[in-house]
Amino acid sequence: MSFIIYLSGEIHTDWREQIKQGVLENKLDIEVLTPITNHDNSDNVGSKILGSEQNDFWKDHKSAKINALRSNSYISRADIVIIKFGDKYKQWNAAFDAGIAAGLGIPTIILHQPDLTHPLKEVDAAALAVAETPNQIVEILKYISQP
Amino acid sequence: MSFIIYLSGEIHTDWREQIKQGVLENKLDIEVLTPITNHDNSDNVGSKILGSEQNDFWKDHKSAKINALRSNSYISRADIVIIKFGDKYKQWNAAFDAGIAAGLGIPTIILHQPDLTHPLKEVDAAALAVAETPNQIVEILKYISQP
Amino acid sequence: MSFIIYLSGEIHTDWREQIKQGVLENKLDIEVLTPITNHDNSDNVGSKILGSEQNDFWKDHKSAKINALRSNSYISRADIVIIKFGDKYKQWNAAFDAGIAAGLGIPTIILHQPDLTHPLKEVDAAALAVAETPNQIVEILKYISQP
Amino acid sequence: MSFIIYLSGEIHTDWREQIKQGVLENKLDIEVLTPITNHDNSDNVGSKILGSEQNDFWKDHKSAKINALRSNSYISRADIVIIKFGDKYKQWNAAFDAGIAAGLGIPTIILHQPDLTHPLKEVDAAALAVAETPNQIVEILKYISQP
Amino acid sequence: MSFIIYLSGEIHTDWREQIKQGVLENKLDIEVLTPITNHDNSDNVGSKILGSEQNDFWKDHKSAKINALRSNSYISRADIVIIKFGDKYKQWNAAFDAGIAAGLGIPTIILHQPDLTHPLKEVDAAALAVAETPNQIVEILKYISQP
Amino acid sequence: MSFIIYLSGEIHTDWREQIKQGVLENKLDIEVLTPITNHDNSDNVGSKILGSEQNDFWKDHKSAKINALRSNSYISRADIVIIKFGDKYKQWNAAFDAGIAAGLGIPTIILHQPDLTHPLKEVDAAALAVAETPNQIVEILKYISQP
Amino acid sequence: MSFIIYLSGEIHTDWREQIKQGVLENKLDIEVLTPITNHDNSDNVGSKILGSEQNDFWKDHKSAKINALRSNSYISRADIVIIKFGDKYKQWNAAFDAGIAAGLGIPTIILHQPDLTHPLKEVDAAALAVAETPNQIVEILKYISQP
Amino acid sequence: MSFIIYLSGEIHTDWREQIKQGVLENKLDIEVLTPITNHDNSDNVGSKILGSEQNDFWKDHKSAKINALRSNSYISRADIVIIKFGDKYKQWNAAFDAGIAAGLGIPTIILHQPDLTHPLKEVDAAALAVAETPNQIVEILKYISQP
Repeated sequence: MSFIIYLSGEIHTDWREQIKQGVLENKLDIEVLTPITNHDNSDNVGSKILGSEQNDFWKDHKSAKINALRSNSYISRADIVIIKFGDKYKQWNAAFDAGIAAGLGIPTIILHQPDLTHPLKEVDAAALAVAETPNQIVEILKYISQP
Repeated sequence: MSFIIYLSGEIHTDWREQIKQGVLENKLDIEVLTPITNHDNSDNVGSKILGSEQNDFWKDHKSAKINALRSNSYISRADIVIIKFGDKYKQWNAAFDAGIAAGLGIPTIILHQPDLTHPLKEVDAAALAVAETPNQIVEILKYISQP
Repeated sequence: MSFIIYLSGEIHTDWREQIKQGVLENKLDIEVLTPITNHDNSDNVGSKILGSEQNDFWKDHKSAKINALRSNSYISRADIVIIKFGDKYKQWNAAFDAGIAAGLGIPTIILHQPDLTHPLKEVDAAALAVAETPNQIVEILKYISQP
Repeated sequence: MSFIIYLSGEIHTDWREQIKQGVLENKLDIEVLTPITNHDNSDNVGSKILGSEQNDFWKDHKSAKINALRSNSYISRADIVIIKFGDKYKQWNAAFDAGIAAGLGIPTIILHQPDLTHPLKEVDAAALAVAETPNQIVEILKYISQP
Repeated sequence: MSFIIYLSGEIHTDWREQIKQGVLENKLDIEVLTPITNHDNSDNVGSKILGSEQNDFWKDHKSAKINALRSNSYISRADIVIIKFGDKYKQWNAAFDAGIAAGLGIPTIILHQPDLTHPLKEVDAAALAVAETPNQIVEILKYISQP
Repeated sequence: MSFIIYLSGEIHTDWREQIKQGVLENKLDIEVLTPITNHDNSDNVGSKILGSEQNDFWKDHKSAKINALRSNSYISRADIVIIKFGDKYKQWNAAFDAGIAAGLGIPTIILHQPDLTHPLKEVDAAALAVAETPNQIVEILKYISQP
Repeated sequence: MSFIIYLSGEIHTDWREQIKQGVLENKLDIEVLTPITNHDNSDNVGSKILGSEQNDFWKDHKSAKINALRSNSYISRADIVIIKFGDKYKQWNAAFDAGIAAGLGIPTIILHQPDLTHPLKEVDAAALAVAETPNQIVEILKYISQP
Repeated sequence: MSFIIYLSGEIHTDWREQIKQGVLENKLDIEVLTPITNHDNSDNVGSKILGSEQNDFWKDHKSAKINALRSNSYISRADIVIIKFGDKYKQWNAAFDAGIAAGLGIPTIILHQPDLTHPLKEVDAAALAVAETPNQIVEILKYISQP
């Protein structure tokens, strides 16, 4: 039976492509969902479609909510939410997505380097796997997708 | 009718005491719940009670889970979860708590300085109020607690 | 066993006081919850506490969300939501509250004059009683509160 | 991954057709659900199928419930509920649908002219987007439907 | 820890009083909830409070809904729903209450004579106990209420 | 968008075939689910597959539970549960199914002759339509299935 | 804020008393719930109250269901379910209770000796703490109960 | 309408193959889901993919959680969870799966020899059928799958 996975978090490396490639090469029966990963489009979608704002707070607010139309819907439909944390930026949206999944009772896999273990301890503790490389994720997906 | 609030996030300033003080001074019918805010106790509780670990990942893991026994229970019983973000540290646990509340359908109030608006846009967009000072939180609590 | 009721909707007549009075006079074991019914306070609470807005949309937005902190919490804790529709104003917030109660599976009683029957047909159809006077509500509360 | 949207509210302009046309032209993977928008059929379905009523209240009641068989089922299956408010009529059923979606945790987009901002503030505050034209809705749907 | 029980069904014998008496005599920490058991009041409450109806269907409809305000609320708050079936009348409301409890995941105890076993097989099969006398119910309540 | 309906209750007339025929003739996009309507098979399935019982209670018990594997699963997947009450037998399983649907929040249509109005008042009051003939059901299904 | 804990599992040592004693000595604001731990009473309650059975399966069945009236109610009301596994007997009811808690989203603490780690790996993996002594449980309860 | 079944528990006999074969031979519209039944792969998957552990507890922990990604997802999607208990090993994971299904409200069928009746009484009491042979399961599936 197929799985639906949602790939949340860091958007500056090609980790999503590596996982998609692994799903493809191994012919796994897995549907891969992603957020909009074009940073500029994601930041500006609100003012671009619904009109500009003088106040940055409301500009961000409108964009964040339109992005939530997609991401919240995808998270709630996913069987597994996979979230990568990188070494730059605050990435609070990634931790927020991990929390939403936890609140909805949807299992997570967290992907990060070992040096982030301490600040991610609460997020990791709620996950069903903590990986360091996209390839490990692919291996997990291969394992659970066996007939 | 009384409210239960849970104060999550930043532990390096006295914002929780200011809110508790405001609740007290205004005689609000509000129960204030908090996480364990002693940093060392919180980090070491797992190994202290359940035995030490060689691997830091598992040391953190055990502590994070014991802390989750308290925090997840308190979040799920709260009418409002209030989360403060400061200017230091990664604070992924704060964003994680905001996500858990969102996933459970519990309303949030976010407290932070304006310079954090952009990285917090997803967290703010899901909140019912975004404040800059503990006093604003107290004013909101006073307002909603009117008979 | 006691009931909790929430009185939503029209704020220009004394129907809430009549129901409270009826509960008191009949010594019913019923807790009565209400929204903030001071119109000006309710409209301006957002800008008053969290700062003024140039754009009316955001001014309204901030106030509506703070009021939702109270009203949504009260609706979700109520055993019965009672909603009055008057002959003036749009009162979409009243119909919105009726919908929230329906979505949460909380029973409603609707209070309105017969001339509003047609536009309220969907709201009435989802209710467990449709009354014309506050006194009828009190009679229903007396009936269901018998030991 | 496809979205299901439900178009609730105003039935006197062609806004639903504009959205359907936009979905078609942009080849979006979106299923569009609508209520019965023929006003006479919708008002009379109860007495027509189940027998006439002397009392207008019960005539409306029977029709409203048969329409609820369709609309409530569609709302609960939708990923997004889109609700338009016009400048005529009471439209309490539109606000009621917005409340049902909110109570079920289903995101909404609200469509209305700026002069309705104040009476719709509670409905707007719970939405993930507030638009003024059907075309803006199509743009949002295009954005969130990107592969 | 205390239990809340709701006593649904047959209203022509004193089985409710026997259970209440048993709870009292054994000083059990159990709150006993009941429907309105005065048959005439229950049948006529709708027209008496909300106005008479020419059509018997709507007369019954209004009364049944007011009674549901009490019974559905009590069922949803009960830890155990206890339902007695007698040898007269259709008693579809009793089986309906058993179904509501089953749909809500609330355990039931069914009370009836052995000659009703076959027509009650679906109701009994979903129950956690099937008793023949009120005294057996009291014994069960004594057993589960031990400190 | 298609509907799934479940036809519960009376098994001695051809009402299910009339509805299926109406769905077919009108080419409605509706999937029709039914319980096992062969009375002997339904009564004896437990002892036939899992071994005979000396005690009739347990014979009925085993059969009722195997039938519940099908009926409860179908009820929970249905968009609408349609339940017919006839003039013979106790039919508590029909009222029980109506209650399960109500407890799960799934809408019902009840089908019965007018002389059963009084004993069915609680069941009818929770329904979205009360019909007297299978043809009325088909008309409702046609109406709500319009594109 | 107080916690409710339920102590499930092994009944042949005094671990429950040790935890109760620890709660008492440390004046923790914790309510301790337990199953019926008298083995004979628990095994025979069904036939003793509801009548004897020739077939051992049904004798066990009736007792298990009466015990479930208490244990399932207590599990669903607990903030934390604590389950001890000993070195004797099959103890499938203990693992079953752990699963019920997991299915309901209620956190667990598992108590067992290290030699049971492998067969308990699935149960442990879903828990928020795994302890070896009742005293460790008391320490955890002290920690999370701090004001 | 098709059913999804999940086959949990004992992995040392060919009972899963017998059920799959019965589904195939009888052309039942049933999708059969299973856990990973290769014992070594299941035990070692955690360390093999995510890195070895010195401590057996954490080795087991990592494997159990990866297996839970598959099994919990499959249980929650199943219409019926079928669990076999054999005469060897502790099999706490089987009872744990039965509990998860019970907590989620998903019906179960339990498969075991009569000599396990007493230790399985709580698990059996929550099931909708208790069978002794895989063939009996196939007969039940045939019965409930009738058109």
